[in-house]
Amino acid sequence: MQDIKIGLLGLGTIGTGVAQTLFNNKKVLEQRLGFSLILKKIADIDITTDRGIDIPRDMLTTDAASVIEDPEIDIIVELIGGIKPAKTFITDALRAGKHVVTANKALLASHGKELFDEAKVNERDLYFEAAVGGGIPIIKTLREALISNNYTFIYGILNGTCNYILTEMTENGSTFENALDKAKSLGYAEADPTLDIDGTDSAHKLGIIVSLAYGIPSSMDKIYVEGISGIDSLDIAFAKDLGYKIKLLALAIDRGNQIEARVHPTLVPFNYLLSKVDGAFNAFYVRGDIVDSTLYYGRGAGMMPTASAVVGDIADIGRNIQSGIAGRIPYLGYGEGLSSKKQIIPIDNITSNYYLRINAIDRPGVLAKIAGALGKRNISIVSVIQKGRQQKGFVPVVLLTHEAKESNIRTAIQEIASFEEIDRNPIVIRVENKDLKDNRDVP
Amino acid sequence: MQDIKIGLLGLGTIGTGVAQTLFNNKKVLEQRLGFSLILKKIADIDITTDRGIDIPRDMLTTDAASVIEDPEIDIIVELIGGIKPAKTFITDALRAGKHVVTANKALLASHGKELFDEAKVNERDLYFEAAVGGGIPIIKTLREALISNNYTFIYGILNGTCNYILTEMTENGSTFENALDKAKSLGYAEADPTLDIDGTDSAHKLGIIVSLAYGIPSSMDKIYVEGISGIDSLDIAFAKDLGYKIKLLALAIDRGNQIEARVHPTLVPFNYLLSKVDGAFNAFYVRGDIVDSTLYYGRGAGMMPTASAVVGDIADIGRNIQSGIAGRIPYLGYGEGLSSKKQIIPIDNITSNYYLRINAIDRPGVLAKIAGALGKRNISIVSVIQKGRQQKGFVPVVLLTHEAKESNIRTAIQEIASFEEIDRNPIVIRVENKDLKDNRDVP
Repeated sequence: MQDIKIGLLGLGTIGTGVAQTLFNNKKVLEQRLGFSLILKKIADIDITTDRGIDIPRDMLTTDAASVIEDPEIDIIVELIGGIKPAKTFITDALRAGKHVVTANKALLASHGKELFDEAKVNERDLYFEAAVGGGIPIIKTLREALISNNYTFIYGILNGTCNYILTEMTENGSTFENALDKAKSLGYAEADPTLDIDGTDSAHKLGIIVSLAYGIPSSMDKIYVEGISGIDSLDIAFAKDLGYKIKLLALAIDRGNQIEARVHPTLVPFNYLLSKVDGAFNAFYVRGDIVDSTLYYGRGAGMMPTASAVVGDIADIGRNIQSGIAGRIPYLGYGEGLSSKKQIIPIDNITSNYYLRINAIDRPGVLAKIAGALGKRNISIVSVIQKGRQQKGFVPVVLLTHEAKESNIRTAIQEIASFEEIDRNPIVIRVENKDLKDNRDVP
Repeated sequence: MQDIKIGLLGLGTIGTGVAQTLFNNKKVLEQRLGFSLILKKIADIDITTDRGIDIPRDMLTTDAASVIEDPEIDIIVELIGGIKPAKTFITDALRAGKHVVTANKALLASHGKELFDEAKVNERDLYFEAAVGGGIPIIKTLREALISNNYTFIYGILNGTCNYILTEMTENGSTFENALDKAKSLGYAEADPTLDIDGTDSAHKLGIIVSLAYGIPSSMDKIYVEGISGIDSLDIAFAKDLGYKIKLLALAIDRGNQIEARVHPTLVPFNYLLSKVDGAFNAFYVRGDIVDSTLYYGRGAGMMPTASAVVGDIADIGRNIQSGIAGRIPYLGYGEGLSSKKQIIPIDNITSNYYLRINAIDRPGVLAKIAGALGKRNISIVSVIQKGRQQKGFVPVVLLTHEAKESNIRTAIQEIASFEEIDRNPIVIRVENKDLKDNRDVP
């Protein structure tokens, strides 16, 4: 068998992790593969900074094209991130006959179709396990291992930054701001964490999951997204009293001819395994019609866990090259022209249970007015808590509803917010509350 | 692309699940694969019993050879179980040029090498995802997704029967006997559950895991095995007070040039995710040197979850056939002649923390004698509880030790058991108690 030669574009955190893995675990990779993965060239705009690993000088270049066009190189690994010039580099590499591995979820979410078409035309592989769930092999699991299943639903905790912040708020009673500062100081949040906090990163990942699981390409613009910046420690505390943790969940649910796909803070019952996924960890709960309940847990980001996924892809493609094949598995899990015709349901049409926190003046008749506004729209109430001291003349009234239609909740909340006894915008958080077959069978 | 034709040997529970999956989820499989998986023939000694699914009469035969020798059939699925005639059928199928899928862990544990050699000689695939962990794709994960990792350790809850019984004892205070009866009545335990209860089934699975993860073939006879029939509800209760659940764990631990591989009841701290894996569920906690902590959870047995894994293998082999290849991945995860030279450490040489329950006469000086017997062997004590009423003149003394050598514990316990103040054999259960990098980073 021949060696497989690799060109790396981008020597940032993940790139350095990939180089380190290929160097340090060379032996075990050879034992398992029966051939060698040789890192031949690395391109980066900065080749002078010390990355803390020993890289031969002549392996480094600032000229990406010289890596992409190197005729000896079989696989290009794109770890630059962003759209430009990553997209051009991947396109050039595919046209130069290279297979490509990327971890670039934003690029795949926005320009996936073009890139996969390019790979198809050039009969090359384009793998992206590291784009979703870091070290958790969720792409391989959905596209290969669980292939016989219709996916009943998939719930994910897909963003470590948000999960770290919510865990910190839950366990130490921190405010959102303090938790975010701590996440930054520990390296769990970037200097500008906007795309994490506002749910965009989770939605990018959910878009890929929805493509793979349901054969719906390019769904990003139809996924409903709500971030965690509106979560108050008061709501975390109320949720706890009610038996829930607040998590940023990404949900994909099969509704027959349609699919729900949404990212938002969610009250998750304590008896769900997902409620135990804390700190910077990620997890996917996948229910299939054949396999029933499964869960996959691990680090969703970070230098080495992401490198593990990238090198796994390199090895997979290496095996294809040794076998003389490419395109063994459809890029997005469904064969050419065989995607499903399922549509994503607009958020207004979904149903859910809801947690409502309404700051109201503590005066007789207010609860009746709230209940009336809900009742008019067929929203029935599971429980009401009125607790704690007044804040500026208002007390929080917390309600849990039975299953209700999202659009009904919205019009009811609009009416409630217009009452003179109500302060500012009421808080609305969706509640996860499945009919359970048995106590074990929960996400 | 051509259809892939399948012959099924054994129409028991799993076989029926596989047939049902191939029939009912035909469409989604075709969309994802781009070709069809056609179940052509089924052999079973009983072809008259109604299995509750609609199988065309002419698909059924009592003549396994006619299925194995059918020139149209590409893949033989062996779901008979046991050694004879399963081994002969698989061998014949490979020699007839068929690829094979099996769920037969006992056969692989005892005759794996012969069968894989036969597959190799005939250049055919032999897949077995369903043999370990039911619907959890642990084989694919270890052999493919996490290939870049040295596996620091792997902890598994690999037997649903034992986990169900221990959960029932923990949650409802049942005796072992009552919990076993309940497991039988619910179908979680077979009429003769010996191989589950005594740990043999877990050891078969651990043997396969050890082969895949560390490249050590045929290790079954070197794996230390202890079952759960000696677990008393008293120990479950003491463990709970101390912050632990008792689980039957299968452990594989990398110790440099050696490997620990053992199956035994274990005290698992409440803060481990593995302690939340209850009922008939299975889970694998895999720590890799690159990916760090990961966990895989799902149903480890049962008709449909096992069928999910079998059909996943059929699809994988189908893709290989369409690409005109076989042997893309080494059967046991390591290339020909590239297995590691690691040995399994004899149980006497391992170290662990221990839970000891010693029934002693409540008399001054007894504890000093026990502590003396331990201290002589450098076994230091973390905590002592003496609790509850006398039973026939004895009271239970419960000790947790610091890390100690297994052989030292054994000689100490032997000495303690010889004291006239001590009743019968003291209870010894290993305790899981890792040095934790952080609170999240626990199995």
